[in-house]
Amino acid sequence: MAIEGKQEAARQPRIRLGMVGGGSGAFIGAVHRMAARLDDRFELVAGALSSTPDKAAVSGRELGLDPVRTYGSYRDMAETEAGREDGIEAVSIVTPNHVHFEAARAFLERGIHVICDKPLTSNLADAKKLKTLADESDALFILTHNYTGYPMVRQAREMIANGDLGRLRVVNVEYAQDWLTEAAEETGAKQAVWRTDPAQSGVGGSTGDIGTHAYNLACFVTGLTLESLAADLDSFVPGRRLDDNAHVMLRFAAEEGERPAKGMLWCSQVAPGNENALKLRVYGDKGGLEWSQENPNLLWYTPFGEPKRLITRNGAGAGAAAARVSRIPGGHPEGYLEAFATIYSEAALAIHAKKSGSELDPAVLYPSVDDGVKGVAFVEACVESSRKNGVWVTL
Amino acid sequence: MAIEGKQEAARQPRIRLGMVGGGSGAFIGAVHRMAARLDDRFELVAGALSSTPDKAAVSGRELGLDPVRTYGSYRDMAETEAGREDGIEAVSIVTPNHVHFEAARAFLERGIHVICDKPLTSNLADAKKLKTLADESDALFILTHNYTGYPMVRQAREMIANGDLGRLRVVNVEYAQDWLTEAAEETGAKQAVWRTDPAQSGVGGSTGDIGTHAYNLACFVTGLTLESLAADLDSFVPGRRLDDNAHVMLRFAAEEGERPAKGMLWCSQVAPGNENALKLRVYGDKGGLEWSQENPNLLWYTPFGEPKRLITRNGAGAGAAAARVSRIPGGHPEGYLEAFATIYSEAALAIHAKKSGSELDPAVLYPSVDDGVKGVAFVEACVESSRKNGVWVTL
Amino acid sequence: MAIEGKQEAARQPRIRLGMVGGGSGAFIGAVHRMAARLDDRFELVAGALSSTPDKAAVSGRELGLDPVRTYGSYRDMAETEAGREDGIEAVSIVTPNHVHFEAARAFLERGIHVICDKPLTSNLADAKKLKTLADESDALFILTHNYTGYPMVRQAREMIANGDLGRLRVVNVEYAQDWLTEAAEETGAKQAVWRTDPAQSGVGGSTGDIGTHAYNLACFVTGLTLESLAADLDSFVPGRRLDDNAHVMLRFAAEEGERPAKGMLWCSQVAPGNENALKLRVYGDKGGLEWSQENPNLLWYTPFGEPKRLITRNGAGAGAAAARVSRIPGGHPEGYLEAFATIYSEAALAIHAKKSGSELDPAVLYPSVDDGVKGVAFVEACVESSRKNGVWVTL
Amino acid sequence: MAIEGKQEAARQPRIRLGMVGGGSGAFIGAVHRMAARLDDRFELVAGALSSTPDKAAVSGRELGLDPVRTYGSYRDMAETEAGREDGIEAVSIVTPNHVHFEAARAFLERGIHVICDKPLTSNLADAKKLKTLADESDALFILTHNYTGYPMVRQAREMIANGDLGRLRVVNVEYAQDWLTEAAEETGAKQAVWRTDPAQSGVGGSTGDIGTHAYNLACFVTGLTLESLAADLDSFVPGRRLDDNAHVMLRFAAEEGERPAKGMLWCSQVAPGNENALKLRVYGDKGGLEWSQENPNLLWYTPFGEPKRLITRNGAGAGAAAARVSRIPGGHPEGYLEAFATIYSEAALAIHAKKSGSELDPAVLYPSVDDGVKGVAFVEACVESSRKNGVWVTL
Repeated sequence: MAIEGKQEAARQPRIRLGMVGGGSGAFIGAVHRMAARLDDRFELVAGALSSTPDKAAVSGRELGLDPVRTYGSYRDMAETEAGREDGIEAVSIVTPNHVHFEAARAFLERGIHVICDKPLTSNLADAKKLKTLADESDALFILTHNYTGYPMVRQAREMIANGDLGRLRVVNVEYAQDWLTEAAEETGAKQAVWRTDPAQSGVGGSTGDIGTHAYNLACFVTGLTLESLAADLDSFVPGRRLDDNAHVMLRFAAEEGERPAKGMLWCSQVAPGNENALKLRVYGDKGGLEWSQENPNLLWYTPFGEPKRLITRNGAGAGAAAARVSRIPGGHPEGYLEAFATIYSEAALAIHAKKSGSELDPAVLYPSVDDGVKGVAFVEACVESSRKNGVWVTL
Repeated sequence: MAIEGKQEAARQPRIRLGMVGGGSGAFIGAVHRMAARLDDRFELVAGALSSTPDKAAVSGRELGLDPVRTYGSYRDMAETEAGREDGIEAVSIVTPNHVHFEAARAFLERGIHVICDKPLTSNLADAKKLKTLADESDALFILTHNYTGYPMVRQAREMIANGDLGRLRVVNVEYAQDWLTEAAEETGAKQAVWRTDPAQSGVGGSTGDIGTHAYNLACFVTGLTLESLAADLDSFVPGRRLDDNAHVMLRFAAEEGERPAKGMLWCSQVAPGNENALKLRVYGDKGGLEWSQENPNLLWYTPFGEPKRLITRNGAGAGAAAARVSRIPGGHPEGYLEAFATIYSEAALAIHAKKSGSELDPAVLYPSVDDGVKGVAFVEACVESSRKNGVWVTL
Repeated sequence: MAIEGKQEAARQPRIRLGMVGGGSGAFIGAVHRMAARLDDRFELVAGALSSTPDKAAVSGRELGLDPVRTYGSYRDMAETEAGREDGIEAVSIVTPNHVHFEAARAFLERGIHVICDKPLTSNLADAKKLKTLADESDALFILTHNYTGYPMVRQAREMIANGDLGRLRVVNVEYAQDWLTEAAEETGAKQAVWRTDPAQSGVGGSTGDIGTHAYNLACFVTGLTLESLAADLDSFVPGRRLDDNAHVMLRFAAEEGERPAKGMLWCSQVAPGNENALKLRVYGDKGGLEWSQENPNLLWYTPFGEPKRLITRNGAGAGAAAARVSRIPGGHPEGYLEAFATIYSEAALAIHAKKSGSELDPAVLYPSVDDGVKGVAFVEACVESSRKNGVWVTL
Repeated sequence: MAIEGKQEAARQPRIRLGMVGGGSGAFIGAVHRMAARLDDRFELVAGALSSTPDKAAVSGRELGLDPVRTYGSYRDMAETEAGREDGIEAVSIVTPNHVHFEAARAFLERGIHVICDKPLTSNLADAKKLKTLADESDALFILTHNYTGYPMVRQAREMIANGDLGRLRVVNVEYAQDWLTEAAEETGAKQAVWRTDPAQSGVGGSTGDIGTHAYNLACFVTGLTLESLAADLDSFVPGRRLDDNAHVMLRFAAEEGERPAKGMLWCSQVAPGNENALKLRVYGDKGGLEWSQENPNLLWYTPFGEPKRLITRNGAGAGAAAARVSRIPGGHPEGYLEAFATIYSEAALAIHAKKSGSELDPAVLYPSVDDGVKGVAFVEACVESSRKNGVWVTL
């Protein structure tokens, strides 16, 4: 029961952090800041918080940043901070998708670690170029597929890796929302506007915004690689330019002579009654697992032929992988911000290891630029399959 | 709260019922008998309970049937009972699928009403022939898609017909079980043996056994017609001859100028932790509904922009369609047998109306031979699509 | 999975049954009839269905009873049926509480088995007299504490008897409803009128109507004997003459040197949002159990230091006691009527054993006249404790 | 959906914070630090983290505190920091209960705001003295009854204040845990040792540790005042010196002529399967509410005669009080740390208002020293009532 504050690092100094995007009116910027603060491993010291310089300045002031380090553009920030002795060591990129590539490039080229929101970029060509840049850079690249930070997601991954489910057969994942049931983009709602705009989001709507999370989660937990998919996408809301609902059939890669696992992915932003209903179900020949983001501290484990078991975060049955990223006792719920903070803490551990040249603890896990490339490829494959009437597209 | 025994009919005499199949070791035969008894509208008076005459005799004795009316074959029963003044008026056919066609024919041709288990037949050609026979007969044909008898399923149907969900967009339905996770058919388990045997079941395994239920439920509740499907079927258990898992994408028919509703169907008999997890979710532009068979007295209604509401059987918010087929107050759960009994009671009402030449109350609903043809067509379309690598097949 | 219709008896002839009460407008009469029918062990052949002769006749006709055996009073029925060679062997008494005693006496004295609704009588003096009558009679007395018929209640009882929970410490039970939140009795609603009328119900309102069920359930499952209680009763609705809410602290008898188990009982008919929320939680030094009537096919088992387990009716982890009274596979819910039917089937088994002089299978369980006396004593103790400002009253 | 980081203050400088207790091995100290950090309104700059000076020094180093401001005793810290120009403005006291009084006094007397863990003190005499000190001090006193920081708890309080439930009748609250099911204190587990030790905890075991939370929550949400209680306490684990289970009946104060609300409180640390199962249910003559800490983002609202509604944090149906203390969109769960952080942010707002002499927004809510006195009085009343065999004790 008694748990020390093991996420509190502080034997190492806080990492100096900048932020691109995330000014007033943004949702995800504030999330990144809280996540960066929770475990006390980062200190926000600089920002290019808006592409509108005035707004950037106001936002910087609101956050208590030094005005000198409040920049009107990420380029300025990259250049100036790279030149300061106490310049930022890492940067969080929390803009709409189409800015990710250029912004990331600016920092990677200067050896500044990048923590970037997903999807990686707004198209696959950029994604691949960014991967090359990241591979060539000394700096690390961390993609915030934040759901991989949930303790029970780590638990599920560990159990599957341990063989508790046997050979995997079925992987069903879904992410349903309802906030775009009506044409919110026509009311000017900032979040709706850019997420339904191909110029800012890329070719995927719900597939890019939340389908990539579902896809990433399924692969992270199962350890499987998606081989091909067949998709049927829709834009149910009249006038909407990007998909707001997608049904996708999945085939995973199998070893020689093995029957491949199959699956389904459903993502929707027009499903009334669903807020952030990300749900994963995995079945193997020995048992199953079910996890739901909206009540994330629980994991159903269903060994075949035995009663269902409910494993709780830090409760009996939870293993080392979950305990490592838990902060408080079971029954005291940790939520979205804590999972997001875990990605930041993993990033911090990786950055410190990099700085000190020491080996990174293999238990440390964070989504990489490779995951980002896969995510963008997933979106493009969905769109292609759907355009071709649901033909199987190989990834 | 106070509810009269409104399912107790008895102003009309009980209908004399025979049964084909359902001897010792059968699961569904006993279910049919309890269902027929619950509302006191039928009396079982004859049976051809097994294709093995000795077993038929023993089973008849166990059920207290008159030995004279315990037959060694359904043909004998049809012929003899048709000749008795007090002969059976209706027959329940509860054999494996491949027997349905010939057995139904024997009774329909003699004007005896048929209550038949699903799927209708083991192939589409037979199904169509049976439809012709049923259409030409004076007798009624009732298919026991029993899930349509659940009060909250009726409630859902009523709400959608009333427009409470607006224009429908997404229909996701699934039926997951786990009892065939291992090769139960190799242990000789009777239920497993025939359900995995193409000679007895037809071309569909899980698709025929439970996928048809899911498909029927989705159409019954939404009022939509399935236009085409793309399927990916598997037999995960080595050596299994029929599918034990299917992922299916659905496209429903739309009116001119309207965007068609889309959906997904998943059925599986290899999903550990699932017993009879039949679940339906429907989303329209005004709201959504969710229903699950394992806790069937509840219906989630999620009007867009309002808090989720939980409607209970006979509770506030439940309408006339649900009340009509409820027996006891809300909070006192009715289950599978009650829903099954409702199909029998609907059949009785239809038979009485037929006999008396009176008009049938339009609130009376039962699955018909047309639903049966559609079900078999669904199975064959799934198999065809899957064989052709998931191409869209029109129904 | 495959389950024979083991509740179908029929090797023995159906027991001839009469009914007292249960005419039009009654709730529980129809329940008893469906329960008696489900497993095919009884045949309703006579009735004194209302104390108003005209209504009795109409109700008898509606149920298809022989008019000759439709009586204007239970006295007539007792006398006449006792004289018939094919007279009733058992009678169901489903009237308001104050009639139970005299009606039961009339049948017990003639050797006719009595199946009686709870609470046993409207006061303890009558209850004790009835016990004497029942003890002296050759006929059996079965009290329909129907919740003891649920398979998972049997499962819980078996697990506790097996020591799975270790030494019991805490027993919390509650039964909450909301249908008397307003003064329904003032609208003339039949169920509300008699249940809030001391002349018909006795001194207990919610305590008698549902508190006795909760008390009986707690004792049935745990095997414990209540030693004393301290109660705080209320009639929250202005003008209501009987309690509509009760909080009760419980102390159970312990063996010499053992610490007694403690508990709480809450019953309420003024708790909006509760339909028939009967819930039991039991904790011992090795583990706990939780069961809820509104989703009765599940039982939580929480062994200390291990993940919670969800045992399902007929699923893995369910034992012989549950299987014995289950009819269909797990995941296909059985409900209130099935549990009620189990009481009838247990009664039938006991009656057949009595008739044949054979020993009754010890697995057969039904609530007895002793349980009935205890129930009435419980109600009177609650009322006494509450009147004396919550002093502990020994039972 | 889009939500600005409204909990991010920073227009005002961070409040300089010290901490008493909370060194290595403590659970609640780390919680306070994360809570203080999350919304960026505090900066931890000093600590007397352990009563063992060596351990204090190590803990300070681990947290990155200036060694000069890492103190070996709270007295030193109070004196020294009070003398610094940049000294702490507020202090968090997170020691075992018996230290609260003297530590709080040391800071209050120097005008340093106190944020103190509950229960207020280990006995009522101290609690009252501390109240006098707090009332006389210029400094604020905030008690971390952290559950009052949950958005849906605020929502519930707002709805009741708005009259949505009508006149309140029944208030049932419980807090169940299982971690003391066995004699964990005998294994030396730090948390178990002090919480079961009268010298450190006071007269209450489970009543003090968690019963006070349940009591505080019930009063906070309902706005009611507890008038009297009758309790039955136990120490089920052999050798345990403080209660580990308590059943308590509650009577609330009523206005002249009104029927008082009644209730029940159950707290237990020996209920296997319960981690931190704090649950509140409130019923009035118009409707009910149910909330559970383990899934805290949901609130059931059950208006009488209407379907149950599930209100989600930041979802439809949630009002201003909940929105004010929410950070992220509905469906993205906030948990225990966020609720705790809200107490800190409320404290910060109060401290800033105090400093600036401006009026505090009446929406700002935090538990006060008065709540603390009530909590200790509650524990002592429980113990007294139980010793006197459950007699009603007036508070």
